[in-house]
Amino acid sequence: MRRAGKVCEILGMSANVPTDIVFSFTGLIRRGGETGPHRDGWGIAFYEDKGLRLFHDPEESSRSKIAAFLQSYPIRSEIVVSHIRKANRGKVALKNTHPFVRELWGRNWVFAHNGQLKGIKKVKFDSFEPVGTTDSEAAFCWLLGKLRRKFSTPPAQPALIKEIQKLFAELAERGVANILMSDSNLLFTHCSNRLVHITRRAPFGKAQLLDADVTVDFQKATTEKDVVTILATRPLTGNENWIHYKSGEYRVWRDGETVSTNLKA
Amino acid sequence: MRRAGKVCEILGMSANVPTDIVFSFTGLIRRGGETGPHRDGWGIAFYEDKGLRLFHDPEESSRSKIAAFLQSYPIRSEIVVSHIRKANRGKVALKNTHPFVRELWGRNWVFAHNGQLKGIKKVKFDSFEPVGTTDSEAAFCWLLGKLRRKFSTPPAQPALIKEIQKLFAELAERGVANILMSDSNLLFTHCSNRLVHITRRAPFGKAQLLDADVTVDFQKATTEKDVVTILATRPLTGNENWIHYKSGEYRVWRDGETVSTNLKA
Repeated sequence: MRRAGKVCEILGMSANVPTDIVFSFTGLIRRGGETGPHRDGWGIAFYEDKGLRLFHDPEESSRSKIAAFLQSYPIRSEIVVSHIRKANRGKVALKNTHPFVRELWGRNWVFAHNGQLKGIKKVKFDSFEPVGTTDSEAAFCWLLGKLRRKFSTPPAQPALIKEIQKLFAELAERGVANILMSDSNLLFTHCSNRLVHITRRAPFGKAQLLDADVTVDFQKATTEKDVVTILATRPLTGNENWIHYKSGEYRVWRDGETVSTNLKA
Repeated sequence: MRRAGKVCEILGMSANVPTDIVFSFTGLIRRGGETGPHRDGWGIAFYEDKGLRLFHDPEESSRSKIAAFLQSYPIRSEIVVSHIRKANRGKVALKNTHPFVRELWGRNWVFAHNGQLKGIKKVKFDSFEPVGTTDSEAAFCWLLGKLRRKFSTPPAQPALIKEIQKLFAELAERGVANILMSDSNLLFTHCSNRLVHITRRAPFGKAQLLDADVTVDFQKATTEKDVVTILATRPLTGNENWIHYKSGEYRVWRDGETVSTNLKA
């Protein structure tokens, strides 16, 4: 088994049918204290339509009873955002555990981040204020405040996608901004230096986790029409072709497919 | 066993030490489909300092695997707010499941309500907008918008308590407002027609649930200094003296004790 780096790890999913993420989550949580050093809490958000199920735990994920429960209780969702934490800024506490959540325009927004962002905790906040002490939550609050200031009602999708691209790029100027964010409709992603993705679709094959002796045959759990994209800090399986984001890459997902990217084809 | 009424039921706790609510929760969730008709989802919020653990499930609580898990996994908290739902307004969906959550002034606020409030979904919202379609979430958004409009930064405690009393009374003019709300520091409560409380302190005794064949000896799990107040729509135990709120009663709790009330002594 491979050893993880000394940063937080993020995990996301975008799918065109409600899909459970137990397989990927099983790999991720091993990195929280067992195959990785991310002992400082973890969290996961599952969207169901506009609603949200949230699980946060300041315990290390590899020993967390809630994480163990979630492995036995598959929750099906089209958008999932998860995070395991290695504390850099902000002490170990529930309030500092990603993903962070806020409501804007009557939508639940969630945000998970790895990296460090200089000076973001000292900005003037507008509408949204951090509860905890992480630079990540501060970045999220700053971003949503900017969005609300620019658009008092939700803009059309292209304008929203463009504005978030600009705000992510501004955050990236402060340091490392590997980000997963959703508004319950789209999954907005940005990579500074560590983010990979894989899209699984028919014909589905088998996959073998790197962090646990677990294999899954996706063909048994899917239909021909299913499209499921998984995003992670590092590849979770060893026998599949994960694609590495480029530095500065911005990519927006919906139903498992890329809706928008700043990469030239 | 007694049968429940045809309204939602709420459950809250205020304690001076982190305390688990498994005993009371075990009684409550039986009312979600088993000893009561509240089949339309349930939720619970546990504060840990300023952080929040949230569990929401649109399944009926008496059959919910997450509810079963929580009975086996005591989470210790000083403030808990829970709710089981009998849908009146708004369809059965995760987004319509209490308690609702918003951030104001860098604090996590939660809100659970039973009753119906006329016309509250048609008000103009300011800063906070409902995600779902319940009158309860609309009331919460309206109230927090009013608070932010009046106080751009958090006011002193007496001013906050007074303003929330006024806003609860305005809500109550629209119908039935049995409410539990917290900002992570205080537990604000209002009764229109159904709310009871009990404060347990030394010498602790035994208690027997009405809705399940479960008895607990609190003396074994407590110290002499512990003060634990439980609030519920109807008494959860049969051998203790639950106190009924008066109609229009407003009461604010902290550390298991009443901080403020509009009742004359």
